Parts: sequence; structure tokens; C-alpha cells
Amino acid sequence: MALGEFDLIARYFTREARKAALGIGDDCALLAPAAGMQIAVSSDMLVEGRHFLSTVAADRLGHKSLAVNLSDLAACGAKPLAFTLALAMPRVDEAFLEGFSRGLFALADAQGCELVGGDTTQGPLTISITVFGEVPAGVALLRSGARAGDDLYVSGQLGDARLALEVFRGSAGIDAAVVDEVRGAMELPQPRVALGMALRGIARSAIDVSDGLLGDLSHLLRRSAVGATIEVDALPRSAALRRQSIAWQRLCTLAGGDDYELAFSAAPADAGRVAEAAQRAGVAVTRIGRIDPEPGLRLLDAQGATVANDFASFDHFRS
Amino acid sequence: MALGEFDLIARYFTREARKAALGIGDDCALLAPAAGMQIAVSSDMLVEGRHFLSTVAADRLGHKSLAVNLSDLAACGAKPLAFTLALAMPRVDEAFLEGFSRGLFALADAQGCELVGGDTTQGPLTISITVFGEVPAGVALLRSGARAGDDLYVSGQLGDARLALEVFRGSAGIDAAVVDEVRGAMELPQPRVALGMALRGIARSAIDVSDGLLGDLSHLLRRSAVGATIEVDALPRSAALRRQSIAWQRLCTLAGGDDYELAFSAAPADAGRVAEAAQRAGVAVTRIGRIDPEPGLRLLDAQGATVANDFASFDHFRS
Repeated sequence: MALGEFDLIARYFTREARKAALGIGDDCALLAPAAGMQIAVSSDMLVEGRHFLSTVAADRLGHKSLAVNLSDLAACGAKPLAFTLALAMPRVDEAFLEGFSRGLFALADAQGCELVGGDTTQGPLTISITVFGEVPAGVALLRSGARAGDDLYVSGQLGDARLALEVFRGSAGIDAAVVDEVRGAMELPQPRVALGMALRGIARSAIDVSDGLLGDLSHLLRRSAVGATIEVDALPRSAALRRQSIAWQRLCTLAGGDDYELAFSAAPADAGRVAEAAQRAGVAVTRIGRIDPEPGLRLLDAQGATVANDFASFDHFRS
Repeated sequence: MALGEFDLIARYFTREARKAALGIGDDCALLAPAAGMQIAVSSDMLVEGRHFLSTVAADRLGHKSLAVNLSDLAACGAKPLAFTLALAMPRVDEAFLEGFSRGLFALADAQGCELVGGDTTQGPLTISITVFGEVPAGVALLRSGARAGDDLYVSGQLGDARLALEVFRGSAGIDAAVVDEVRGAMELPQPRVALGMALRGIARSAIDVSDGLLGDLSHLLRRSAVGATIEVDALPRSAALRRQSIAWQRLCTLAGGDDYELAFSAAPADAGRVAEAAQRAGVAVTRIGRIDPEPGLRLLDAQGATVANDFASFDHFRS
């Protein structure tokens, strides 16, 4: 027997409302923000074949669908509160729903982020999540706060998700021993929520790296009306990526896409506070360059020579 | 030249932030709720071929995509504040984007509802909107408040959207003179926001009728642990629908889908306040039955004879 829409929601997605004043099952969910808090909101849509491979395990897809949204909250320094899920599926597939909801709720529970509403319908596999976080008024990390002279940082490592994609596409090869590791970077990104919150009042600007470092950084620089110099050989990357050619390493770290790390700037005088925040959050951060007064992005290698910036940003209409 | 994702957003969807503390262009939008206000949240996803015909005009699709979400706010008595839009399109089609954004913003502006963020990507045409409204704490209209003895009401008219669908399917015929009128019911639903707000403190329960009256009402009854008796010949419907057979009239009004009217209950002593609220909102409301203590839905005709309840609810996985 095919399950109907309402049965589906009930079986896999209904849970007791906890933090929300009213959760799933009415026309709207009700959020009751604490006094002085702003609500940070972000929406991302994932489409099969474009944002994920059809071969991905359902639980990993559930994880990633929420993770990419939490990454936007992290970039604002917001604390996750709740999310809505709109899900189109070609057919009712209970094995998929079981895995998807398991992966989704494992991350949601770990981050204290409650499912409060949504919609399910028949259609090509498409996942649209809107996430809500809270941040004290005036404290959110913005793209617009970078100043000339700031140090530029990135969290974690860059490029493994793109490396995994190229391995799946057959255009790059890696040791069998590290396939699972780079695949994990692509399928199980860890949103830097704790780091974003730890950087409140320390970072002057921040953005999440989802479409490739250069592309995302260019948004931050434009919003802040500044430029930057990046030390491309200083970009943090895995041992697996280091075994690729320099050209692959640069493509993956600079324009890889799907990293979900934070890029942020802070005053040089706050370098110690940045290091403390990173330690508190349990995430490595690496200084990768500096903010310049003149617009544009300049890329330098370890010898200080200019690297040509001919990397196209990852664009979900172009790639 | 194909426009990239970011150019698209800029050209058709970026406007100055007004009510929101921070609008489009950062990782998150920031909403600053007024003291004592709860945020009502709802998400709906529309998929081509399932929620709308591929022949629909782009501006009407823009209107409807937001209208179906605003209808959920209306059912809670919430005042629209903001929304996010996630849009998958097979290709960058500027004529579509121009029309879609025009229809979307016309309704958004009329309702004071600001676009604060979203996502655009390539994929089968899919529109996912999450809408935010505000309502004073404790005031939201809920599905769970109906009590035995309440009068049951519905706003506007039921059934024309389904009639239009059946005309397009070729299974019903209507006069050419009224085609545009019933098509308007399907493509340009008017969310009952003003009515929902006017019913604060008057209606004891409310739900929006999107999947057919019987199906939606059954959610309200279950949540309220009551039943209801509906006078099927009292259901408000258009002259065009009245010219159809009784069987078609009943199917369309009781289980039509896509009505986006409000069904609500109120104490008989508040009948005058209901009428005043309807007048203030400029929307007709019709008493269609009563809430009973015993569970289940009973259907009666104008002579008081039982009508068999063999109408299947509209289900986006079944229909």
C-alpha cells in the first residue's frame, strides 16, 4: 500500500515540539524569539544530479541537506533553532525516507535544531530547507565588515569535496585507502556552527565557502568595498589532495565548491583571540592572506610570485 | 549570453531591505521581531505538472507561489512579514523570470511581505517558499481549538479551482464566458490574510482549505478531538459551478483542492462578531455547519438527508 502524504509526514518527520511554541501539524509553526534576539534565516535547495549524485546514501543526503543550511547560520554566528523541510520525491520510498530522516535528525539533534514544518510532494528529487537561528541584535557576523589590514582566515581544509567529485567523474585518481575520506568531505560536510558563534565580536566579516573560495570571497570583498591577497600555497588541504598535481590542488582549494568552511577576517591584534575561538570550537583555522584597501583578488605563491586568477567560480547554472 | 546565478538574483530578486534588519546578499537575512511577537512560519513547495500546469502565465505562477504560503499565515491570523524563495529552473529564461518576479512582488507588496533571501539553481521547475508572519504571543488561530456547538464557517467560495482543472483536463465543460473567471480561481487565489487577522480572538479554530474541505477539516477535527456536521448544499459556490451536475458540485466544493479559503469555527454567541470581522476584511463568510462532540464528519443535504462521504481528499502523492 502506498502511503499518503499525511501518513508519510507523520511516520518519518513528526516529533514533539520542543523549543518551538508550536511545531508540525498546524498551518504554521510558531517561534517565540527571546527578547533582544534577531532571527537569522537562510534557504538552500538541493537538486539531484546537480547538488548530489544519485548514488549518495540517503542518510548522508539527509545530513548534507541540513548541513549546507547550518553553514549559512555559522557564517552569521547564529545559534541554530529550527528548520522547515520541503521535499519532492518521485515516489514514496520508505527505505529512502528512513535513511534520509535518520541522517537529517542526527545532525539536527547534534546542533539543537528542530524541524518545525514543511511540505512533501511528488516530483523530481528536490530538497529545500529553510533554517532559523538566533543571534543577539547587532552581533551577527556580516560580509560587509572587512577592513584593509585584516588577516584573512579559513577554517578546516579546502578542496576535498571537489576532489571527490572529480574522482567520481573519473577525471582524478586517488589511493583507494583515502576514497572514503574525501568522499566524506563531499557527503558529510560539518557546518562550523560552534566556530561561527565563537567568532562573535572577534571576526570583522565572514562568509561560508560553498561555491569555491575565490567566488565566495569576492562577495565578501565587494560588500566590504576592499580587496585581498591570498597565499595560495598556504591554503589548508588534506594529504590526499597534496598528492595531486599543483594545478589540481589550486583548482580544488581555490574554486572547488561544496567546502562549507568559514572564510573570515579579523584585525591582526586579534590573532590570539581567533586562535582561542578556534580551539574552543575544536576547529583548525589557517591564516591565508590579508585584506587590502584596493579592490580585487591577488593570488601569490610561496615565493611571492603572482598566480594567474583564471579559476571560474562554481555556479549552479554554469557548471 | 547566459546569465549566471548571481546576476539572476541581482537582476530580478534583489531589492532594498525594508522591514528586515538585513535582507538579500548576506549568508542569512536577519529578522528583528517586535517584543511579545511570535514568528509564524510555513513552507510550501510547488512542482510543475503537479501544482501548476506548464501553460500557466509566469506572473500568475509568481502570484500563486506566494499566495499558497500566505494562506497558511492567514489560517494562523498572522501578519505577513517576509519570505524566502528557492527556485529551480531548467534554464535561465528571462521572460519567465520577468513575469514570475512581477507577479510575485505584486502580491508581496500588496501584503507587505518582503523577500529576504533564497536560492536559485538549475533543475526541474520547482518553487519552494518559506513565509514568516508575526502574531502576538497566545493569539494565533490554531487547528486545535474547536469545541462542540461551535458554528463552522468557510470564506469565499469553494470548488472553482477544481472545476477549472477539470475543464483543462477535458472532463467538465463550461460556458466560454466564465472560463477566465474559474481559471482565475485556480491561478490567482487570494489569500485571506485580512480575514485571518480580523478573526483573532473570535474564531476558536481555523485551517486553510488547500487540499479540499473534507480533508483539511478532518485535520482540524482530529486536532480538536471533535466531529462536525456539514450542510453540503449550503457550501458557497459560483454560478458557474451551480450550472454543473450536483455530483460535480459536491466533488468540487467538498474535495476540490486549491481553494485557499479559510475554514474556521466560532461560538454561536459570536456570530455577530464573525460577520463584522468578515465585513472589515471585505470577504464573504458562510456558515456551513456545526462542530459535534462525537468524532467524524457527517454530511447532510438541504432536506436533512445523509450524503455519503465517499470523497477522497486531494493528496499530492495520490492524485
